[in-house]
Formats: sequence, C-alpha cells, structure tokens
Amino acid sequence: MDGLSPRPGEDARTLAAGPGRVVGRAVTRIEDLPLVRGEGLFAADVNFPRQLHMRVVRAEIAHGRIVSVDAEAARAMPGVVAVWTAADVADIPLIPFRATKVRGLEPYCQPVLARDRVRYVGEPVAVVLADDAYRAEDAAETVMVELEELPVVLDAAAPPGEFAPGHDTEPTVVRKEYGDIDAAFRSAHAVVELELSVGRHSGVPLETRGAIARYDAAHDVLELHGTAKKQHWNRDEIARLLGRPPQGVHLFEGHVGGGFGVRGELYPEDLLVCAAALRLRRPIKWIEDRREHLVATNHSRQQSHRIRAAVDAEGRLLGIDDVFFHDQGAYVRTHGARVADLAAGMLPGPYRLPAYRVAGHFRLTNKTPAATYRAPGRYETTFVRERLMDAIAARLEIDPVEIRRRNLVATAEMPHARPLDALGTDVVLDSGDYEGLLDKALARFGWDAMHKELAARRAAGECVGAGLAFFVEKSGLGPSDGVRVTVDATGAVEVVSGAASVGQGVETALAQICAEALGVDYSSIRVVRGRTDRIEFGNGAHASRVTVMSGSATWQASLAVREMALECAAQLLQLSPAELTISEGVVTRADGLAGPSLTLAEIARGRGPNSPAMRGQTPGLTAERWFWSDHMAYPYGVHLAQIRIDAGTGGVTVERYLVANDIGRAINPMLVEGQIVGGLAQGLGGALLEEFRYDPSGQPLSTTLADYLIPTIAEMPEVDVLIAEDAPSPLNPLGVKGAGEGGTNGAGACIASAVDDALRRPGAITSLPLLPAHLRALLVEAP
Amino acid sequence: MDGLSPRPGEDARTLAAGPGRVVGRAVTRIEDLPLVRGEGLFAADVNFPRQLHMRVVRAEIAHGRIVSVDAEAARAMPGVVAVWTAADVADIPLIPFRATKVRGLEPYCQPVLARDRVRYVGEPVAVVLADDAYRAEDAAETVMVELEELPVVLDAAAPPGEFAPGHDTEPTVVRKEYGDIDAAFRSAHAVVELELSVGRHSGVPLETRGAIARYDAAHDVLELHGTAKKQHWNRDEIARLLGRPPQGVHLFEGHVGGGFGVRGELYPEDLLVCAAALRLRRPIKWIEDRREHLVATNHSRQQSHRIRAAVDAEGRLLGIDDVFFHDQGAYVRTHGARVADLAAGMLPGPYRLPAYRVAGHFRLTNKTPAATYRAPGRYETTFVRERLMDAIAARLEIDPVEIRRRNLVATAEMPHARPLDALGTDVVLDSGDYEGLLDKALARFGWDAMHKELAARRAAGECVGAGLAFFVEKSGLGPSDGVRVTVDATGAVEVVSGAASVGQGVETALAQICAEALGVDYSSIRVVRGRTDRIEFGNGAHASRVTVMSGSATWQASLAVREMALECAAQLLQLSPAELTISEGVVTRADGLAGPSLTLAEIARGRGPNSPAMRGQTPGLTAERWFWSDHMAYPYGVHLAQIRIDAGTGGVTVERYLVANDIGRAINPMLVEGQIVGGLAQGLGGALLEEFRYDPSGQPLSTTLADYLIPTIAEMPEVDVLIAEDAPSPLNPLGVKGAGEGGTNGAGACIASAVDDALRRPGAITSLPLLPAHLRALLVEAP
Repeated sequence: MDGLSPRPGEDARTLAAGPGRVVGRAVTRIEDLPLVRGEGLFAADVNFPRQLHMRVVRAEIAHGRIVSVDAEAARAMPGVVAVWTAADVADIPLIPFRATKVRGLEPYCQPVLARDRVRYVGEPVAVVLADDAYRAEDAAETVMVELEELPVVLDAAAPPGEFAPGHDTEPTVVRKEYGDIDAAFRSAHAVVELELSVGRHSGVPLETRGAIARYDAAHDVLELHGTAKKQHWNRDEIARLLGRPPQGVHLFEGHVGGGFGVRGELYPEDLLVCAAALRLRRPIKWIEDRREHLVATNHSRQQSHRIRAAVDAEGRLLGIDDVFFHDQGAYVRTHGARVADLAAGMLPGPYRLPAYRVAGHFRLTNKTPAATYRAPGRYETTFVRERLMDAIAARLEIDPVEIRRRNLVATAEMPHARPLDALGTDVVLDSGDYEGLLDKALARFGWDAMHKELAARRAAGECVGAGLAFFVEKSGLGPSDGVRVTVDATGAVEVVSGAASVGQGVETALAQICAEALGVDYSSIRVVRGRTDRIEFGNGAHASRVTVMSGSATWQASLAVREMALECAAQLLQLSPAELTISEGVVTRADGLAGPSLTLAEIARGRGPNSPAMRGQTPGLTAERWFWSDHMAYPYGVHLAQIRIDAGTGGVTVERYLVANDIGRAINPMLVEGQIVGGLAQGLGGALLEEFRYDPSGQPLSTTLADYLIPTIAEMPEVDVLIAEDAPSPLNPLGVKGAGEGGTNGAGACIASAVDDALRRPGAITSLPLLPAHLRALLVEAP
Repeated sequence: MDGLSPRPGEDARTLAAGPGRVVGRAVTRIEDLPLVRGEGLFAADVNFPRQLHMRVVRAEIAHGRIVSVDAEAARAMPGVVAVWTAADVADIPLIPFRATKVRGLEPYCQPVLARDRVRYVGEPVAVVLADDAYRAEDAAETVMVELEELPVVLDAAAPPGEFAPGHDTEPTVVRKEYGDIDAAFRSAHAVVELELSVGRHSGVPLETRGAIARYDAAHDVLELHGTAKKQHWNRDEIARLLGRPPQGVHLFEGHVGGGFGVRGELYPEDLLVCAAALRLRRPIKWIEDRREHLVATNHSRQQSHRIRAAVDAEGRLLGIDDVFFHDQGAYVRTHGARVADLAAGMLPGPYRLPAYRVAGHFRLTNKTPAATYRAPGRYETTFVRERLMDAIAARLEIDPVEIRRRNLVATAEMPHARPLDALGTDVVLDSGDYEGLLDKALARFGWDAMHKELAARRAAGECVGAGLAFFVEKSGLGPSDGVRVTVDATGAVEVVSGAASVGQGVETALAQICAEALGVDYSSIRVVRGRTDRIEFGNGAHASRVTVMSGSATWQASLAVREMALECAAQLLQLSPAELTISEGVVTRADGLAGPSLTLAEIARGRGPNSPAMRGQTPGLTAERWFWSDHMAYPYGVHLAQIRIDAGTGGVTVERYLVANDIGRAINPMLVEGQIVGGLAQGLGGALLEEFRYDPSGQPLSTTLADYLIPTIAEMPEVDVLIAEDAPSPLNPLGVKGAGEGGTNGAGACIASAVDDALRRPGAITSLPLLPAHLRALLVEAP
C-alpha cells in the first residue's frame, strides 16, 4: 500500500455532476492572505545579501552592425563590478524554443547578448553589474555602442528578402491542408474574400519582469527567483545552456503581477543573471523598468490575413483558404514558434469545414520578438473567421446569427475530429453544444429586444450597434502533469504540483479539487507550485492547462490518499473501507450511524516513519499521481457586445457585454468569472486601444503607458458572464476545460462586428485596433 | 514500473564481500570542494536582508527566584526592536525530549525562557532583538534581572532533595536487571567493588551554534537555517510548540563545524528565533559566542558509579551490580533522557554476564543541562567496566589481557541476546569475533615486546606504562530511513536522504554506496541531506546510524534504479536485463562483447514526462526505498595505549595509541580512520584535559578555552588505526556498523589503565580526567 502505483480502477473515478461540497462553489481564494497583508513576494521583493544589480544596455536602432562597444568609462565607475558584451557570454548558446512541428527556425533564435548585429530597438547588447541599481543604470548610460546602420524590415507582408547573411525574412511557412480545397472553390455558390489584420499588442502586466539569480556554492545549486509559468522547462534549458545538470538548477516562484503568456518565458535577462551569479559568486538582481518592458518583453498578435471562403447557396462553408503573414519580430523566442501554428490549426473554430488550406508565412522584422499572449493565434483567427462569417452573412443577406447556426458543428457530431494538428496534437473537438450555448447567450443578452432598442436610438441619431463572435478555445495541453498529495501528522494537507501560479487562482482550484476528493477543508490546504526542487517534473501554467492537467492529477492523487486513509481506518475500526467516509478530515461511518471515528491526523501518525505498523513499507499518508492526456480539450463560447460610437471623437463605448463560455465544469465560478472578465479587458484593449507602433526607421513609438494604452476601469463595460457546463470534457475525470482565454479570444471579432453594425457598413472593419481617429474617418466618409 | 514499491526479492540483495568498484576504497571526499574554496555555508554565513540579531540575557547565578526583569533601558536603546521575557513566550510549551522508556521526566524539561526561577548559570532569561549584533549585545547588558538567591545542588551523588516546589532532584531511577544477581554474589569466589567517576565534559566544536529563522509569509513557511543532526524531529517539534503544521516549517542544513551530539538538538535559542521571526516578520539571527557555548550547549558525561562484580575463581564474571548517579544538570533536554538509559543498557560491554542489576539515579543539579556527547553512556561505562576488569585481574593476579579473554563473548555465541534494552531496542550483539580482534590488536601493537621495553625504561627511572580497554559500541538505530535516488536527463544522479551531515563524510559514503549499486561515478553524485522540504521524513545523523540506515536505503534505492534502467535498456536493446550491466553510467552487454549501449541519461530522457512511452506511468528514472531495522548493530574494538608521566609535572604524554575497531564493513576506510582519530582526540580530552568545573556557588569556572582545555595537535599521539571487517552485521544488506564513536569510547578506560600501569598501582585511577596536579599528588605519595 504505497503512494505511487495506481491501482486497478483508480483512473475510472470521475467527479460527479453538480456542485460538490466545495467544487463548483465560489469559495474565496486561499492565495490572497499574504497579498492583502502586504506580504506578497514579487520579484522586486526578493533580495539577497551582497547582491549586485544588473542593467542591460540595449540597442537604440532597429538594425545595425556592431562596430564596437566601449565600456571603459562604465568599468571605471564606482560600484561597477563588471561590464559584459557578447564576447563575455559567447559560450552561452542561442536561447531555444519549445518543440513544435515547425522546422527550420533554430538559426533565428536570440543570443543572450547581440553578437554581430542588433535586430530591434531594445535588443540587449551589454550588461552592467554594479552594487546598486542606480549606479548600474548610470554606468550603462556611458557604454558607447557604435553601430553601422542597416536597412530595416518592418512589414511582415512585404516580399521576403535577406534578413541577415544566410538568413531570410521568411524562415518557414506553416502549411496545413485537408479536404479538396480546389473543388470547394470550383463548386462554390459564392466566394467571399477579405484582407484583414490584427495589430501588434501584448501582455502588459502591472508588474514588470524580474530575475534574481543566486549560486549556492555550498550545495552547488544555482537558484533563479522571480520565475513564472514554466519553471521545469526553463530549469532544463538554463541547465543545458550553462552546462549544468538540471539537478543543480532550481527555480522558485513567488507572486506574479500578471503573466498572460509573456512572463515566465526564458529571456536573455534570465540567463544573464544566472551566468553572472555563477561567475561572480554574488546574487544578481535584475528588475525590468516599464520602458524596457514595452520593448524587451514578448510582443504578440501582429498578423495579416488574405482569406477566402467558398460557400453554398445557404451560406454553408465548403472551404476556407487562408494565407497569412505572421510578424515574428527579430527572433524566435521560446514560445515564438507556436503562434503561427496555433493560428493555422485553430482558425476553423466552431464551424463544419469540409476543406481547408492555410499557409502561414512566418516573417521576421526588425521589431521586438513576438510570442504567445493570452489566446495566442485564436484572438487573431477568431477575428479573421468571424469577420468572414459576417461577410458571408452580408453577401448572402442572411442574418449573422443564422449563418453561424447553419455552420456550427452539431452536438451529435461530437467528438469532431479535424484532419489538423495544433501544438503537436490532433485537433479533435472533444465535446460541445455550440448552438445551445448560442441560444442561451442570445436570450440572456436579450438580443432581439436589444435590436429594437438600438434601432430606436439610431433613429434618434445615436451611432450604436451590436455584434457577436463565436469562438473555440483549446486547453489542457498534455502530455502529463503530476501531483503529490500529503497529509501530515497534524492532518494538514499539502499538494505539490508542477504547475505555476500567475495569479489565476491555481492554489484555490487545486485545493478545492483535493478537498472534494479527500474530504477536508479546502481553505487550509497548502498548494506548492512553481518550485523545481519540490517535484522533478512539471509542465507549468500556460495554454489554459493547469486545471485540466494538474487538476486531474490532484483529483487522482487525492482519491488515492483517500483510499489509503480509508483502508487504514477500516483495519483499525474493523469495518470495510466501503462502510466509511471522510468529511472535514474525519473518517466516520458512511451510513451516518454513531461509531468510532479517526482523524486523518491520527491515520497519518499511524503511517509515520517510526510506526511499527509501517515496517517494510514507505511511510506517510501520501500519494503521487500523473495524469496523461494526448488531446486538448476545447472550450467554446460566444461574445455579444452592444456599443456606441461617439460621432465627434470616433471613440467607442462598450455599453453592454456578454461572454458565454462553456468550460465543461467550473471548479470555482468566481475564479472563472474573474478570468473571463480580466481576459475580456485585454481583448478589448487589443480591439480598441493597444498597439505597439514603430516609426519608419523601426523606432518604437509606444514606450510609455501614455503611448501604449491599456484599458482602465473607465474603459471596461459592465460585463455579464454566462458560465455553461453543458459539455463536460470526456478527456479528464473532472470534465473540465480551461477558462483562461475565452474572455480574450472573441473580443476583437465581437467589437469589430458591433462597430460594423453601428456604422451600418458591413465589412467596414478589416483591422484592429479600432482607434478613434480611424473610426472618426470612417464616420466622416459614411453616407 | 514505478519507483516506490519494492519488488519481490529486492530486499535480499546484499553487498558482495571485498572491495567493490568504489565501496571499500579510500576515495576523496565529495563535500570538500566548497570548503577548500572558502565557499562553506556555516550558520554565521547565513544572512537575510532586514535580519535582526538576537542576544540572550542569561542567568548569572545558579539558582534563584526571579523577582523582576527590568528591560526599560534596553528597549530605549537605538536599534532595539524588542526585548522579551518569559511572559512574552508563555504560550510556548516546555521543550520536550525524545522518546525513551524512562518515565516521569516531562515536568523537568526546559522552558525557552526561565519562568519563575533560574536553575543554572547561563539559563536564558530574556532576549534582545536589535538591528545589529553589537547593539543587541550592548542592550542585553542593560537588562536588570533581580534574583532572590536559593541554595544550590551541585553533587549528583548527594542525598536527593527538593529541587523546586514539587520537583525532586531525583525525578527517576533507571533500573535494569536480569539473572539472579543475589545468587551470583552469594556464590562468588570474590567480590570486587569500586567507586568510580567521570568528569563533566562535552562536545566543544570549532563552530559554536547558530540559528537563523525566517518567515516566508508569501508561502506561509517558517524556515530555520543553521540546523544539524535531526532536522525532521526538530521540524515536528518546532511546529508543535509554535502551533503550526509540520508542512509549514522547514529546516535547512549548511556546513557544520563539528556536531558530536551537542549540535542539532532543539535548544531554547532555536525556538526563540523562530517565534521572533513569526511575530516580528523579520529574519532573526543568533550566533552563540564561545562563553555562551560553554554554559549554554549541552554538557555531558558526569556520572559516579558504585560497582560490584561477583567473579569465580578463574575470574569469570558471575554478576555485576551497579549503582550510579547521573548528573543531568538543571533540565532534561531533547536527548537528555537517553544517556542514563544507554549507560545502564551498554555497561556489560563485550563480556558474558550471567546476572546484572543496575540502578541509574537520574539527578538534577544547578548546572548546565546534560545530554548526549559522542559515545554517550559508553565512554562512561567502558571506563567503569574496564576499570572493574583491571581490578579483577589485580585481585586474582591474572593478566589483564587474560581476564578479558576469559570473559569475552565468543564468536560461536553470536548473535548474543541480553535480556536488556537500550534506546528502546533489545540488546542483541549482532556479530563479532572479539577475541580475534584482541589478538590482532595486541600483535599489531607489539604488546609483549612493548612490555619488555617499558620495563627497561622504568628501570632507567621513567614513569611509563601501557593499558588496554575493550569496548562495544552500538550503531544504526532504527526504525527507518528513506532515500530517493534520481537520475536526471543529463545522467546526473541525486540522492535525497533524511540524514544529516555533521562533517563525518555522509555525502561521500552515500555517494559511494549509490555509485557501487548503480554503476556510476561516485564523485559527481549530489547528496541532499538535512532539508525537510526535500523528503518528508528522516531520522537524521546521530547514534552512528547514517551509514547503516540511510546507507542501506541508498543501496536499495540505487539497486531499484539500476533495475529500472536495465529493464528499459533491455527493451530498447532487445536483450534481457540479465545480459546487461552498468558501468560509468553506460549500459552495455555484461559479457563484454561489443554491442549497442545506452547511457543512463538516454534512459532517463526516455522516461521523461513528455515521453509517450511513459503514458500512464510515473515518469522519471527514480526510486525511493525505506530501510527498516528493529535492532541496532554493535561494532566493537580495543584501545591500546603506551604513556609516559612527567614526574615533575604529573603531565601525561601518550606515546603510542592503537584503536582496533571492527565496523563490519568500511565504506571508505579513510573516512573511518578520520572518525576514529577525531573521536580519539575527544576521548583523550575527556581523559586528560577537559572538565567543566564549578565553584561552590555553582559559578562555572570553565568559560573560556583557556580554562576548558581541548586537545590540540600537540597533545595528540601518533595513532594507529586497525579497521577490521571480520564480523559484518547480518542486520543490513551492506554488513556495516557505525564507526563514529569507537575512537572515543575506550579512551578514558585505556588511559586510566595505562596510568595505573605507569604508577605501578593497580586501581589507583578512579576518576577522570587525569589532571596533572592529581597525578603529581599520586606520584608524590607513591612508594
């Protein structure tokens, strides 16, 4: 009776439908106590004695050959311990990217310091290490980088050319295809073709990035603090790049002021602090400032699409042919190879699509490298696909809702396999009642009544409109995640996971799942995450995977501990395990009759390392379980918006907004709602406000929060969230699908649709963001 | 195929006799690299930002009622954050002691700060917490403790009385008995009776104690650094005393400048820094100074015995009846209850003893509390028993070697069960060839030839002599210890153990055992120890248990990993596991024929969390195994010494010394030799130099290293070490017995015997230490 081997039948136990004792309930978050007490541990809060501060000297032009770097003045400044350029870190290989089926990108990865040329404004060229952050910054300003300017490439859709000697601006094209696409177009009743684009924006968390490395020479362990998202992968790569075994590198996670896909990737600064800590034998701290963040941290989203749809006379899709240009920026970063792949794989969304061809041109430009941002590849392609559906509706004069109904994959068709792959897995829509959710959403929003009201307002001179977008998300990327659940001698419960927390409520969700399975109070469960020294492997927190993967592993491990506890109690109480249950940490008779009871603490003590009863066994009331999954789970939903355009300024006010999202099973509806509303804010930012702009020489124009506008509470509409649980995922014992990205996914598409409607010009909107000046121009030219 | 459940037959695999690839060889220590580089992490090296320094205000008289503590002046001093007295920590219970069969001691445990009265000079009365160690010390000197002096008890052998209201100076008497002791004395040919005593001395490591506590509010974890010896037990007790779950307390071990039984016990200072870190939300550092160490850290050894032996005409023991008085000092500390028990249980040593009765009077005095020090209870009782054997020899005019031969338990009588217990286990001498080792030792020392030489020197006027002592040690206290062995994706190997390192070479020994079993290079193995966050349970490093318990668990876990690797390789290479072997981390054909090979790194990668082959399994090339043992293993040995007494000063020069020690199996003879020589130094210290003395009012007189004399290199003789492996322990798969205490155990007895011989006055020596003034007096009164 040990804690590691699953026993027969274990995997079959699924979470019962309906709210549980704690699962399915909007209980308060367990992670908030230190935060509300002011005891949070963000990267900037991490300090070690004798630490040095690192300041990065960054390229000030978008493309140039490095002629020389003169750091003599900096090296002579007080408190400066070292200044390094590329030559000092020539032994550190290029930073790799995570596996994908996309090939040929390896030469385009970023070095930790620019080697022969700089390729974007903000690229690290040198680092200054000093005993004080201000001295480091002052010294960094004296480092003279002489550059010979080279022509810049800023338009990813321009014809490809040479990006650098031997390097092309188009290292690869992502191609996917199924069905007879040419036949689809030959037989089409109509062909609808659009040119569409999404602007460059990204995750701009309240907390900038930070990295603090420390070498513990006594134990030969390199520590990196201020980490997030994917600690185990980063551990392995830091180890490899610095020539150490993974066992000699440990990453630690504190609190995170927003992740959103950008935080926790492996950046040059992470490796630089590690290398410096190893060489200088002093802790090294680097905290990104806001200007750095806006040029140094991953950008995202920028794509332009030329999409064609072949439809029959009823508006049913026969085929989609899409060519898009993915603006990767200057380098392929850790998650950089995946966005184009996800865009190509996820574009068809919820619709029955007999034939599909996509060519995603992966293009390098002299801009900040791009990678994943909340709903990567889906925000973009939902915009493209839903614009296309609106255009088909307009062309065939069919109601936009009706055109979607006709094309939605039916519940009876689930699971719906597409001959496509995304993130290396086959795209099989696992479950869904798409039309049912659409009906619920429209009814909840009062769609038909609203249209009468809008008509009346329009008649009164207001520029108002409504729009909708249907989206399909993906979540729960495998292949595996493990969790170890342990009850200690006081009955306290610890869940050690390979997941990470980026503020999304991981700890509460896993605690609820554990509490439900084990029969304990969720609020006292300790959830350990983001620490590579507590569990050997983990796949982290991204791709809306934690609740699916780590949640399922938590469920299985907790059930295993429950079973172990019941078996022990049964022996002691001379009953069978089936006659017992656990509630609030106490094992009692399941039939409710009076009788002896045992606490989990007592059982744990009985399984202790000094207990004669454990002789020859592995002590502890503990179990580790690994959940494996070959397929992703696909949540889905509808965005509905009612907006008003200020005719004077072109500004858009979102008056009402509904996100309906079926996530299979909500472990904690409050957390899900928080995810959806927060995600929507970012989706609206990309739709209406946020854009990284560059001048023709490649100088970034959005390097302060006065230039790069993120939504504030003033821009946020009243949001109604409809969480549906009509289509639990059959792929995991909880039935859950991820809820992290649905709030973002459809926002651009939905706002575009609503603005079209307000303008009374179907198809007017072909690009995001919808900045006031642009809308004002459209209003002025409007009939 | 997971890593936790043992498989059939696994436990049966024992280490083959003779030197292995790495086991049995004097390879260099893996723990030395940071030490020789100056990168050690001793307690004083641990620092955290914002830390406060704690200074303890200690009692200045040996017994008194606390009238008042005035800390107003201290509180007003710059940098002082808090001053606490007993009232401030009244919620912290008395510090408990580890389980023993001795009952009734609970009320005699120590509070973290003296409550109503002080009971020894040095007892903590208050603590000052300030932002600087010097300010804390200055402020502590202003704390006025008003005491009403009370009578002191300093002689443990004096008639018992009231120690405090309701508390007796004799809380308990340890009694053990078997055989018909009265009949033995009735039928005796002779009865030999002695009064003997051992002085108060203890472990005085180069590094004083230290404790640094930090509360990580973000993760709700209390950390304690600078720990040693028994981290898991201390974790559990700190948690209990401070009202936290063990999962919320973690202890960390760095380097240790000597342990010797005294470091790593749970002292008031450990709890005070923890409580302060929790309350003040700042790290708290306390580093003991030398004067503090000599009054605050556990003392040991002080016992006086009245022993009688009944012997037959040939000098064979018929029975021993011993009454002893154990000077416990003022409180029962964590290991305090065990010394008297061990003394009582281990006194019979290597001799066949038909009847035995012992009464150990556990006596409290107004001195520093006493507990275990290297060979606790055995140094004392070997002195007593071997003095007795010498006295029997003298009385019956039998050669001291011969008298021992006649009484030694014979190999044919092994295992030899005594109806006794020690440390809660039955005393069963597991294996031994006592007489064989005696012969080897005498031959190696040239015992007979030496005696001729000594006679000649005596004739020339020198005061020279030789002595011997036989001892039996105990080692490998169970019940359990676990080890997790993990090979990472680069082939690096980590051994995570619940053991601790107090400088004895734990890391090297466990690495050698792992390397031998697994077939890898020992020198690159990472051994993790002394960290409660890496393994749930552990029994630490004391009682010479690590090599036996953690070593056996390492052996089993490493074999399990080996088997897992061979099974994986066999599948991939299409051979059977039996056809394969592992050497230097590479799996090859066992028959030496050419063929494909696989590295452990490749096998580990194939068992990774993203490997499709692992689906449904627990990933990793890893195994955890727990070794359980109900009985201790009993190493044994002989000390032989040749000494000279300076007739003018009474000073003793040890001219030659041999320690012969059968430890079953030496994993690393160099480490064993180091243990024996180091242990001998401490044994000689207690025999010739070291003594904590008090004046009649209970004021300690040995509070500097000028007053308390530890041996230096000048006092150390040339030491010959004979490591025997003639009697492997049948109790564990390695055959090992502990080697940590044999060098100490017999030193006092052996030196006493040699001094008797030099003085030509058998039985002259009845107490330790043998200070020059005492010997000078004996020389003067000599005939």
